[in-house]
Amino acid sequence: MSLDPLRPDLVPFLQEYLPTVRSSSDSRPFVTLTYAQSLDARISLGPGIRTAISDMETKVMTHYLRYHHAGILVGAGTALADDPGLNCKWPGRDEQGQDNDEVRKDEPLSLHSPTPIIIDPSQKWRFTGSKMQQLFAAGEGKPPIVVVERLPEAPEKDVRYLVASRDAATGQFDWPWLLGALKSQFQLDSVMVEGGACVIKALLARPDVVDSLVVTVGSTYLGAGGVAVSPATPVKLSDVSWWRGKRDSIMAARLTQQSM
Amino acid sequence: MSLDPLRPDLVPFLQEYLPTVRSSSDSRPFVTLTYAQSLDARISLGPGIRTAISDMETKVMTHYLRYHHAGILVGAGTALADDPGLNCKWPGRDEQGQDNDEVRKDEPLSLHSPTPIIIDPSQKWRFTGSKMQQLFAAGEGKPPIVVVERLPEAPEKDVRYLVASRDAATGQFDWPWLLGALKSQFQLDSVMVEGGACVIKALLARPDVVDSLVVTVGSTYLGAGGVAVSPATPVKLSDVSWWRGKRDSIMAARLTQQSM
Repeated sequence: MSLDPLRPDLVPFLQEYLPTVRSSSDSRPFVTLTYAQSLDARISLGPGIRTAISDMETKVMTHYLRYHHAGILVGAGTALADDPGLNCKWPGRDEQGQDNDEVRKDEPLSLHSPTPIIIDPSQKWRFTGSKMQQLFAAGEGKPPIVVVERLPEAPEKDVRYLVASRDAATGQFDWPWLLGALKSQFQLDSVMVEGGACVIKALLARPDVVDSLVVTVGSTYLGAGGVAVSPATPVKLSDVSWWRGKRDSIMAARLTQQSM
Repeated sequence: MSLDPLRPDLVPFLQEYLPTVRSSSDSRPFVTLTYAQSLDARISLGPGIRTAISDMETKVMTHYLRYHHAGILVGAGTALADDPGLNCKWPGRDEQGQDNDEVRKDEPLSLHSPTPIIIDPSQKWRFTGSKMQQLFAAGEGKPPIVVVERLPEAPEKDVRYLVASRDAATGQFDWPWLLGALKSQFQLDSVMVEGGACVIKALLARPDVVDSLVVTVGSTYLGAGGVAVSPATPVKLSDVSWWRGKRDSIMAARLTQQSM
């Protein structure tokens, strides 16, 4: 897949939502929560069905965001369903802040690509044979960090593991600890969270760890059988901006601590 | 409630989605389906809870649309929960197509207001004592047409009734017939459908009777307990346009006949 050019007005639109340089005392990475949904808040037609929602015009934004993050985090369900590459195909910017295919064509894509982080407590996903492995082998992507509950008996080659425990009652990870470990153990100072529904729902309720929210709304309805994203309780947003595309709109915002 | 001024760019944005003059042989009215939802596709915090979603900037659009329609249709659930006035507070346009509070301030609001149509097969809603009745009494709104399964034993004063049957298996009205009757019996050549969730879901599946779709997306999450709008099966859209506000976006489109 080759990318369409980035629409120039996306650069200033996203500017204030991108990771910022943080003081070295900050214990966790800058976290951007981002996903594409239909009008009826579905991210796919059904569990395990890879579904195109966003237009080519907004798809390139995903790669622009990946360019600006050190890590990219998804749940194992998404990794299994989509076999995503999670690399960055956006070639970088020229001195005017414009995207330019010529600028970095001699550099390997792996240089700009974030480190994939797969949340896989039950160890269902395998790097071996994945698209991610193909991209890594071709110099077009980085190998992943896999978040597990215990170290595997047969660790996969090139995979790094992060052992994290879940709350027995809620099944939730201790997100501040987990994100903190990604920074302290793996030097990731910014993480982009792309899915799936469980991870998004969990993090929409965490204004304490999420710094930016970027949601693409596609002009289609996936219907009641689709995988819905709605947090357990109401969530208010601040610093809201909208970008208007031909078929999609994009909202960028921050989660607020207050309840509705 | 006084309205904010209409943002001038909403006029050209909505232009191609407004009711058009149809030939007298056309058997049904022009139908616009319109509603405001949260990012997670909820139209309220819960059943029967009136919930503000759209910003003042987009709320005025509702009245602009009402100005352009002869009828405004809601389900009895919405009428009972919200006690809506369903009148038009937008004062009309000057010769440049701009809204202008001075233009028609001497004319009664009832002149520009659409005729309310309440879908109330079980006759749970009462005009008597409603906000709609207050507005009618004050010359600021029109009295309603109530769609019932059988004529009431004690008809309410000023209410007109339309008897329509529902499909025994699906519980659905015969929408083409019902809309046709609104035109042939009540001379309504355009109808705006505002809710609630059941009516919206039913009509999202009816590209044969819906001419325009106008959805406001507010920048908030109402959460999993909210009243969701998602059609039973996927729906594709055509002629898509987006309008970008400060806190809301608006999508206008047409339903397409094809399935996904």
